[in-house]
Amino acid sequence: LLFLGLRPNLSAVMKSKDIKVMIEEMKKGRRLPLARLISKVENRSADLPEVMKHLYSFTGTGEVWGITGPPGAGKSTLVDCLIKSLRSQGKRVAVIAVDPSSPFSGGAILGDRIRMQEHSRDSGVYIRSLGTRGKHGGLSHATKEVTMVLDAAGFDVILVETAGVGQTELEILRLAQTVAVVLVPESGDGIQVMKAGIMEIADVFVVNKSDRPGADKMVRELLTMVGLGHTDVPTDAHRAEHGKPWRPLVLRTEAVRHKGMEEFVAAMQSHQKYLSDSGKKKEKTKDFLKNELLDILSEKVGTLASQILDTPDGQRLLFDLIERKSDPYESSRKLIQELMKQKEILS
Amino acid sequence: LLFLGLRPNLSAVMKSKDIKVMIEEMKKGRRLPLARLISKVENRSADLPEVMKHLYSFTGTGEVWGITGPPGAGKSTLVDCLIKSLRSQGKRVAVIAVDPSSPFSGGAILGDRIRMQEHSRDSGVYIRSLGTRGKHGGLSHATKEVTMVLDAAGFDVILVETAGVGQTELEILRLAQTVAVVLVPESGDGIQVMKAGIMEIADVFVVNKSDRPGADKMVRELLTMVGLGHTDVPTDAHRAEHGKPWRPLVLRTEAVRHKGMEEFVAAMQSHQKYLSDSGKKKEKTKDFLKNELLDILSEKVGTLASQILDTPDGQRLLFDLIERKSDPYESSRKLIQELMKQKEILS
Repeated sequence: LLFLGLRPNLSAVMKSKDIKVMIEEMKKGRRLPLARLISKVENRSADLPEVMKHLYSFTGTGEVWGITGPPGAGKSTLVDCLIKSLRSQGKRVAVIAVDPSSPFSGGAILGDRIRMQEHSRDSGVYIRSLGTRGKHGGLSHATKEVTMVLDAAGFDVILVETAGVGQTELEILRLAQTVAVVLVPESGDGIQVMKAGIMEIADVFVVNKSDRPGADKMVRELLTMVGLGHTDVPTDAHRAEHGKPWRPLVLRTEAVRHKGMEEFVAAMQSHQKYLSDSGKKKEKTKDFLKNELLDILSEKVGTLASQILDTPDGQRLLFDLIERKSDPYESSRKLIQELMKQKEILS
Repeated sequence: LLFLGLRPNLSAVMKSKDIKVMIEEMKKGRRLPLARLISKVENRSADLPEVMKHLYSFTGTGEVWGITGPPGAGKSTLVDCLIKSLRSQGKRVAVIAVDPSSPFSGGAILGDRIRMQEHSRDSGVYIRSLGTRGKHGGLSHATKEVTMVLDAAGFDVILVETAGVGQTELEILRLAQTVAVVLVPESGDGIQVMKAGIMEIADVFVVNKSDRPGADKMVRELLTMVGLGHTDVPTDAHRAEHGKPWRPLVLRTEAVRHKGMEEFVAAMQSHQKYLSDSGKKKEKTKDFLKNELLDILSEKVGTLASQILDTPDGQRLLFDLIERKSDPYESSRKLIQELMKQKEILS
């Protein structure tokens, strides 16, 4: 088999020198080069290897915080308050709002983004929505690389806000070092059932809209869940000590009244301190980079294999499969053989 | 670099002859071999290539219908009714309930499955839940291969039920030939906004719980959306004609009272007929098999690359990345070079 006619990548490729200049400008705090570099990541530009080559050495200082929870829990308002609190500490803050583009979740996110424009004149704040429609499996990969761009740009805290339902909230574990799960009293019924899943991802539980009925019960249930029984004051006393596993903190907030926000910021920062002190931050960094390598590999192999399947010989391979002259695993072996003949695989 | 010490696959591998016998038994209608073959798919057994080799030639007759919609729309009750209606036509029906194991969606699915056990003495019905927790990207791949096992087992209709939120409902397009989106009057507010997303996936819209307030308004909005203006009777008259694109049908049901079910089954079957008559079914089959090839490739490459990264040399590669002596795209090139030296890649 000979696979001819692979499509060349036609997207405009920038010169290495120009990419370097763009990164330097971004590091001076300019918005336009930052936005353009993020777009290159989001659009999976052919420049990406060159961008990462020059940008990667500047990464490694930004903290990535994940904010997740069911739709309607008030995550965006909470993020809005987080920005204010972190700004008052002098931190530079970036927000990535991951819009899973669900046909069922609708357009709340657009309104939120408009509201967040009150920060738009503050050069210490950068907010960006990332759409994910149609990019199968691409959510965590592109988002991860955007956190790296923002890290290199010098943001101290990078907030990743996702409407966590289904598998999304597992992906946030691959992105964020510290994860807050935001709940509201109304989501209380299912706590016992969702116990296993939720314990895996939350470093901090936030019961938002905590003036509503059921808040006390929910806080108690969460405290029981994290093994603190009937204690009522869930903050400082229960921070994990050095060498011990982290025990999730349980907090109350009323984001619309900016109540409980200092405690929330303190909780997230205490988890970051725990990660550094315990050596767990290094493990997280290693996992993050391991996943990044595997994602790059998977994207490259998938793109090349798709192109091969679009050639006449690839179409014949598919035709044999449709006609049951081969089976999927046998055909995939042939596809791998062809893939390994491509020079592009090593470029 | 030499990568030694790759972990051998220790899972018990069955003899080719025994797998053939198991498939023969399954084709006679026996449950145990069917359940065991599905488990091999779900657990990504080392036997999978051998299983598919012997099973694949029996596939190609079963129809795959996707049933998706927001949590609480009554999908499981609807599926329950679908089973009854299809059984009364003499069809053999399999159900795959995909549980995205969301910490937020909770345990409704377990109760549903118990309720569905009323079909458990009917040999023409098979119901199976598939968990997906922790299997990143594995939802559609394993589910797809389970539909192939059920197809080979002789089921006429394979219903795939997913709680569609986020990216899940896009994955159903990769699995099912005909997709029903189930809504309830309460989910009406966001219809205009979710228009773009929802139009991509629905072949049939079902407004369930249609005795509730707001049902009329929702049906009107959906009809406007699919381009039928103020028409009130949305069934037969609007079926797409030969050569024209399919226009989604809009139906009302009250699944708990078994109302509207014959119309629902007829709508799904008319879409299947449309696919066959228009030649689109062949295109769908081709896309399905192309995705299956790419998924097998991605799984094999990902598994081997992970194993390489766990070896001492792989750890050194990661260490250089952590120390910023390399960048992710450069390191991924080295990883691919090592991957291509592995004999397993061609096996």
